[in-house]
Amino acid sequence: MKNDEYYMRRALKLAKRGEGRASPNPMVGALIVKDGRIIGEGYHACCGENHAEINAIEGSKETIAGADFYVTLEPCAHHGKTPPCVDALIREKPARVIIGAMDPNPLVAGQGIALLQKNGIKTRLGVLDAACRILNEKFFKFMTTGLPFITLKYAQTLDGRIATATGHSRWISSPGSLRYGHRLRSAHDAILVGSGTVLLDDPELTVRLVKGRNPLRIVLDSRLRIPLHARILQNQDQARTVIVTTAKAAKGKVKILQAMGIELLCINMTKSGELNLSELFPELGQKGVSSVLIEGGASIITSILRERLVDKLLFIIAPKIVGKGMEGVGDLGITLMDQAMTLAPIKFKKLGADFLVEAKMGVPSR
Amino acid sequence: MKNDEYYMRRALKLAKRGEGRASPNPMVGALIVKDGRIIGEGYHACCGENHAEINAIEGSKETIAGADFYVTLEPCAHHGKTPPCVDALIREKPARVIIGAMDPNPLVAGQGIALLQKNGIKTRLGVLDAACRILNEKFFKFMTTGLPFITLKYAQTLDGRIATATGHSRWISSPGSLRYGHRLRSAHDAILVGSGTVLLDDPELTVRLVKGRNPLRIVLDSRLRIPLHARILQNQDQARTVIVTTAKAAKGKVKILQAMGIELLCINMTKSGELNLSELFPELGQKGVSSVLIEGGASIITSILRERLVDKLLFIIAPKIVGKGMEGVGDLGITLMDQAMTLAPIKFKKLGADFLVEAKMGVPSR
Repeated sequence: MKNDEYYMRRALKLAKRGEGRASPNPMVGALIVKDGRIIGEGYHACCGENHAEINAIEGSKETIAGADFYVTLEPCAHHGKTPPCVDALIREKPARVIIGAMDPNPLVAGQGIALLQKNGIKTRLGVLDAACRILNEKFFKFMTTGLPFITLKYAQTLDGRIATATGHSRWISSPGSLRYGHRLRSAHDAILVGSGTVLLDDPELTVRLVKGRNPLRIVLDSRLRIPLHARILQNQDQARTVIVTTAKAAKGKVKILQAMGIELLCINMTKSGELNLSELFPELGQKGVSSVLIEGGASIITSILRERLVDKLLFIIAPKIVGKGMEGVGDLGITLMDQAMTLAPIKFKKLGADFLVEAKMGVPSR
Repeated sequence: MKNDEYYMRRALKLAKRGEGRASPNPMVGALIVKDGRIIGEGYHACCGENHAEINAIEGSKETIAGADFYVTLEPCAHHGKTPPCVDALIREKPARVIIGAMDPNPLVAGQGIALLQKNGIKTRLGVLDAACRILNEKFFKFMTTGLPFITLKYAQTLDGRIATATGHSRWISSPGSLRYGHRLRSAHDAILVGSGTVLLDDPELTVRLVKGRNPLRIVLDSRLRIPLHARILQNQDQARTVIVTTAKAAKGKVKILQAMGIELLCINMTKSGELNLSELFPELGQKGVSSVLIEGGASIITSILRERLVDKLLFIIAPKIVGKGMEGVGDLGITLMDQAMTLAPIKFKKLGADFLVEAKMGVPSR
């Protein structure tokens, strides 16, 4: 029993190997232990392929009957793209199944555990429960709310600038941070930027510096300002692009973009004249987008913070001072310091030559 | 010999006890070791009182002859407020004197060591040399250049604001950071702020949250805007105040301020219409001010960075976002990101609920 945490930690490590490829499925790790020896290991490597449990069973060199079976997430009891893992477990007859977190899907949560118990297999639930849920925080949010998990990431100088006064920003952060940014992209289903960023930086928004799949590219562009030669519109076979605009967008340009294979999504504006993100995110959820990485610029960063739509904030802080320039965060309507948005919990760590601040939004002070 | 570093580390710890009270003298620690036992310890507690070596000798319960004598800074060979420490060492006849750093004063550097050697005492110089010099970085700069050591410290939100758009700033940082700020004050000979900060925040600029001496309070005020009831002008018996202005300052107000016991210092303006800090610092050095802590506001922070007059930067970063507001750093004339001021070396650490960034200015990129 005491060793359960030890083995679960190992199973968590295995699970992480699926990062960026398991989605929209969760990352899962599994481990089989017999007489104190690990006889099988597995993880879910790619959506559509074997689940972690099956990989662990298939990789085992010994009979699993009587063994302890560790899995970071409750085994599935329903037919998806592959048969239920619970059936395989019942067939293999381990003595115990030790589970990290319960399946977040309210429709199936607990069913896997119930089936195992009914078939005489002991279960233990909740070993390193918090870590198992944080590992799949995007999946958990999406399964329980239908909304994508929203990560806000941007690089700034120590004095809070994302560009100089002339708009020049390449590069704020170090090569190590740029690689980290690409790894983040591949760990999300979609990247979102504003049309200002497309006009200013003309980014490709693909994963190039690390191995990994390209996420969906989303541009907020209420007035369809995007130039047809923008890099983000190229290579639709490698990375799809969606432009979010309004019903008032120029019909001619809409047609040209559609002919280029670009999807257009129309949503309403807020009273203050911005695209209504509270309307966009449920729509993206409906389309199966379980996570969105917001990469800026300033106006999106500001709205997303003001509307408190962020699940996780990632600031890359470069050890530089640039003085007067473009700020990452604009008007949040805060006039007194006590009304400032608090970030908690918050972690600082080194990231190449830069520092990474990882935070959640704290409880509003008002 | 291998143990020399161990004992020097201990001597450094002793030296630090003099922080905030030894100045303008350096902090010094001393340690006497005989047959592997520490038989005496001392540090320089307060300017005008015994030096570290004498305190260690007086505290020793055994005869020092034949012992190893550790001291973080070369023992003095000249008469100051107290007799030369070298004389006492020669009298006590330790076998070896192990020294951290050489005296930075170019007029006496090496004289203490030479005298010890001439009197048959072995010496070893440079044990933890860098740490011994960093401990007294303010003293080393002042002794070698005649200029005060300049520390820039301010608290900002994660998005680089030092106040909201309405100027409200109390409090950006946590109680732990405020105490740290008072400890910093007592470790400097002077604090410097602009008249804008006096008008906006009306600070006392004294040391209250920790034990320690009050530094000299300096206000930059070219137009003598300071109100006569400003807190910084009160309690001159506890903390003196100097107002830095120009020869053009209104004579009437000058006289009133002088009658209140305030010293006025006239310097020239730069071409861009700011008080010339490059002229001020040598003047302060002449007056025996060996270190200055700059506490803001934005216009002084900006000039001091633009002129690269800073020896050490201390940013307290509160885990908050305030959005549009007052920025710490204004126009530095930087248009391309590659021209940004780089900070190196740089350290991040937790400070109460906040983070402290401690940095030096890196080599200019152009």
